Amino acid sequence: MNLAKLTLMTPGPVEVHPRVLKAQAAPVASHRSESFRELYREVTEMLKQVYIGRGLVALVSGSGTTAVDSMVWSLIEPGEEVLAVSNGVFGDRLASSARRRGAKVHVLRKPEGQPIDAGEVAEVLDELKPSAVLAVHNETSTGYAARNLRQIAARAREAGALVLVDSVSGLGGEPLEADSWMLDAVASASHKCIAAPPGVSFVYLGERALEKLQRRESTTPPSLDLKLSAEYSRRRETPFTPPVTLLYALREALKMLLEDGLEARWRAHLEKAKEVYEAAARAEASPIPPPEYRSATVAAIHLKAPRAKEVIEEVRKAGYLIAPGMGELREQAVRVGLMGATTMPQVRELAHHLEKAIKLHCSR
Amino acid sequence: MNLAKLTLMTPGPVEVHPRVLKAQAAPVASHRSESFRELYREVTEMLKQVYIGRGLVALVSGSGTTAVDSMVWSLIEPGEEVLAVSNGVFGDRLASSARRRGAKVHVLRKPEGQPIDAGEVAEVLDELKPSAVLAVHNETSTGYAARNLRQIAARAREAGALVLVDSVSGLGGEPLEADSWMLDAVASASHKCIAAPPGVSFVYLGERALEKLQRRESTTPPSLDLKLSAEYSRRRETPFTPPVTLLYALREALKMLLEDGLEARWRAHLEKAKEVYEAAARAEASPIPPPEYRSATVAAIHLKAPRAKEVIEEVRKAGYLIAPGMGELREQAVRVGLMGATTMPQVRELAHHLEKAIKLHCSR
Repeated sequence: MNLAKLTLMTPGPVEVHPRVLKAQAAPVASHRSESFRELYREVTEMLKQVYIGRGLVALVSGSGTTAVDSMVWSLIEPGEEVLAVSNGVFGDRLASSARRRGAKVHVLRKPEGQPIDAGEVAEVLDELKPSAVLAVHNETSTGYAARNLRQIAARAREAGALVLVDSVSGLGGEPLEADSWMLDAVASASHKCIAAPPGVSFVYLGERALEKLQRRESTTPPSLDLKLSAEYSRRRETPFTPPVTLLYALREALKMLLEDGLEARWRAHLEKAKEVYEAAARAEASPIPPPEYRSATVAAIHLKAPRAKEVIEEVRKAGYLIAPGMGELREQAVRVGLMGATTMPQVRELAHHLEKAIKLHCSR
Repeated sequence: MNLAKLTLMTPGPVEVHPRVLKAQAAPVASHRSESFRELYREVTEMLKQVYIGRGLVALVSGSGTTAVDSMVWSLIEPGEEVLAVSNGVFGDRLASSARRRGAKVHVLRKPEGQPIDAGEVAEVLDELKPSAVLAVHNETSTGYAARNLRQIAARAREAGALVLVDSVSGLGGEPLEADSWMLDAVASASHKCIAAPPGVSFVYLGERALEKLQRRESTTPPSLDLKLSAEYSRRRETPFTPPVTLLYALREALKMLLEDGLEARWRAHLEKAKEVYEAAARAEASPIPPPEYRSATVAAIHLKAPRAKEVIEEVRKAGYLIAPGMGELREQAVRVGLMGATTMPQVRELAHHLEKAIKLHCSR
């Protein structure tokens, strides 16, 4: 069995449209050429439409983790007090990156997938007065969408903190408006809702983030330095060799996204999520987060019995690859990625097999 | 004029064979699947043949700079005394990455492209007793090949130092033998002599480097942490999402390299370099380094008049893209990349146009 031919419905990487895959096969342009500068312009302008922001988009060569690290290491100084809010693995990783940076990290930690209340965040902010708040827009490990991120960001702003957001699995699939929500930096990547291959990621930088980059005194690894990226962006270049063919693919994927329309994409993800959540409910399995926080891009289903492996194997026989839970939920949950170039008929078929598999393996 | 159609003879990215470009268009595999583990195995086993070493190859998502940073930040601790030897921009960058890491960096600096003598390095080593020596195998900025790297490494070993090498533009084009030369870590990238698209890079880790990773106490950004990569390598996975389609391309490029044979590739680069050096000589222009240190992968030609821009433009009219010098040599030198999927007839044609252009613009 050729495993590469399984339809990817994992939380990333995702199915990529043939139009996007083929775009990679164009000859490599020099990153110091006019044609590259046009590519840079197109990609970053389209990304600004997806971020809904007028700031600067820095392209990062690497995974979503590279983008998150570059955001944290470029915008936080060692010794700074920061607040990380977390209810899952990626919130913890955000905190870990800041801790490794040498920041004094306070964590407001909720159980896996349980809501982080904006009022509670405000209380901690009043007490701590941190220089930055780190939050996850869409927690990939538990399928939690921080639908109150706007409120959390507003409170952080009032308290004088920068708002740094990991939206790796959210951007393009869950509503997010960088400027009107007052998010200062938002890290994301190519291989989730944008539906391009993995390997290129990006950080949105608002005005206050750009100012902080200017003031920063401590050093970062050159390859993660967004201050350098911001300087090079004036001439539409990256400081170091970028993944040119992946940028061709990203350009094509962004064109397809904007052809559909950003709001239509948000709706399409919601509709896909509905199919999966309803199928799970018919099998008497529940998403991990409460209803109003259930992600439209990653469905994480809590199983009544620790049979994630069996459920995944059953679904795999039907041609779909889904993922287990993360951390303590590894055996007790399955995660279905609703991102990428899968169609509604595919999602319906997957939902059907998922329901059957849960009934088969997890009935009391 | 479609600039993307110029033949790339810059020092990277380079021309990529259609077979390699097309390999990228295959469907994206999950990085937690059996098919990815097979891809991981194939790529790293072939890379070990190219490195000529029995150690571990860590795959890094990003540019050559990302690989160099991950090597430096993973293997050097803040406060350590290290010696960087440099005679160009990339030697300086290696020193800069270590300085940003918080190491006490001593630099043995020679003028651009001038040889770094192994005996002189040994003297400094005796005095400093550094924990690591940082050196560049092939200095991209001046077309300098450190043909005495083996001797330098031997002296460093005698002095008890780890040997960390930047071979971004050397590996696969200039002879290098990681184990028999006693190099502890060697960073390189896909888009130079390996002739794949840019965006995936790698670090060779010998036994002593792996031991040091185990002992390391200070933290790195998660995305640059080779200790994590080494742990994941046991199950043939990367800690974070890798650039899957670029790994397909890299696999194809490595197959082509090993079909040709590593030594045949070294010879082919030498032959290409000879064409360019002879053409330059006919135009009374000299490579920057003395004869025995002239790189076979990047030819850097010192011009008698500061007319790099004009020479490059003239060559561009014939369909070839070459690069200016770097730093202070920006106007006074041109650099020709001899890496990638260009053929001998193309190199001869380029050499012909280069000779004409230098004669036209730089005659006294």
